[in-house]
Amino acid sequence: MQRYKLTIEYDGTPYSGWQRQENAPSIQAEIEEALSKFCSQKEIEVYGSGRTDAGVHAGGQVAHVDLEEALPCPVVKRALNAHLRPRPIVVLDVEAVEGTFHARFSALSRSYRYVVVNRGAPLALERERAWQVPFNLQLKPMQEAAVYLLGKHDFTSFRTVHCQSKDPVKTLSRAVVDQEDDHIFFNFNAPSFLHHQVRTMVGTLVEIGRLKHPPSHIKMVLEAKDRAKAGPTAPAHGLYLTRIFYS
Amino acid sequence: MQRYKLTIEYDGTPYSGWQRQENAPSIQAEIEEALSKFCSQKEIEVYGSGRTDAGVHAGGQVAHVDLEEALPCPVVKRALNAHLRPRPIVVLDVEAVEGTFHARFSALSRSYRYVVVNRGAPLALERERAWQVPFNLQLKPMQEAAVYLLGKHDFTSFRTVHCQSKDPVKTLSRAVVDQEDDHIFFNFNAPSFLHHQVRTMVGTLVEIGRLKHPPSHIKMVLEAKDRAKAGPTAPAHGLYLTRIFYS
Repeated sequence: MQRYKLTIEYDGTPYSGWQRQENAPSIQAEIEEALSKFCSQKEIEVYGSGRTDAGVHAGGQVAHVDLEEALPCPVVKRALNAHLRPRPIVVLDVEAVEGTFHARFSALSRSYRYVVVNRGAPLALERERAWQVPFNLQLKPMQEAAVYLLGKHDFTSFRTVHCQSKDPVKTLSRAVVDQEDDHIFFNFNAPSFLHHQVRTMVGTLVEIGRLKHPPSHIKMVLEAKDRAKAGPTAPAHGLYLTRIFYS
Repeated sequence: MQRYKLTIEYDGTPYSGWQRQENAPSIQAEIEEALSKFCSQKEIEVYGSGRTDAGVHAGGQVAHVDLEEALPCPVVKRALNAHLRPRPIVVLDVEAVEGTFHARFSALSRSYRYVVVNRGAPLALERERAWQVPFNLQLKPMQEAAVYLLGKHDFTSFRTVHCQSKDPVKTLSRAVVDQEDDHIFFNFNAPSFLHHQVRTMVGTLVEIGRLKHPPSHIKMVLEAKDRAKAGPTAPAHGLYLTRIFYS
């Protein structure tokens, strides 16, 4: 038995999310099916670092899987990519790891990036890859507001009411907004996030960028511990799970 | 009668190119059809700054069209985008111009960008948007080689044998190669280009980046005036027509 760490890139558009579901295509199921094409073992289960919602992309999702036959890593990578084709899921890296490694529980932190294209015209080249915001956004207020999110807070205002996490207290170690031409990038890092947390933070920051509220508004939203006080949930297709950090 | 200058973004993947053709979808035909949906005039012809091949993208293609009814620019833009949807073609800007303006003949120069992703794994997020090159590429030799292409040369070695241009002498005013992580960008500007010129220059530079030849090899290729001496034609899907310059 050998455990493998897989680093995965995917376009979330055609999937109902990372997690395997009955009657709906998922990234997890596609990878398990691809593995079953060249591994003779009966049960194959792939464990992700966490779920991503329908339409959310990944540049560096991490998962682990146990294979009965200890195949060389380049063989696993090549075979997986061959069997995944033409699906928009690609294995970037395969690493043999100790049996104690767990994609979810060994993760120290997760990084997400959210991409906004701030222009009036719809998107042709980045359709389903970014959120097109037609209202003029000011960078500086969003940068100032993001600073209030840093550190340890009760993020109840920034999670969907369906979030099942017992503890709404999370610690944000990175909250950076930057711009390149008409693209605005929101970068976050934390040991873990609540369900829809990044998308709700972005939706709220965008309202501040539209000057609907001053930057300090986000402090009030945090303190209110009330989802109704935050902005709308930004659409899934602008969100990328970019990197999972391990020790 | 009013002439309009259109700035257009498109994903070239589903099209056989810019130019209208019998029995094949083209960007030009899609735009003409969208115009015919809200303009009552019988004949509508859209003139592009130049053709792009099947699979080639544009971030800033320019075209002009004459409309019998002088509609406000924002109306033309909104109506065009509404009728183009859900096609991956978007009008970024509409400008009312003099009748002497011609998208092709008034153009002073054209800029192209070519995107290579230098990694072993196939592309999930940038599929059909970049050329994945699995061999390790060195940036510096490509940058050195690109300098030899600058200025006025007979580019016979860098055009397809099907190129119909009478004069193979072109003047390159920009030939810059840069890198960001595993992405390598090739940026070119010239008053005009030969057919397949950018893709053949990129194919040849990539061979130099693989260290198959030294940077000065490209000078020999230019002087040979022989297509067989250049590298392979890089695939269409990494190429972007980024900007057309007018006085």
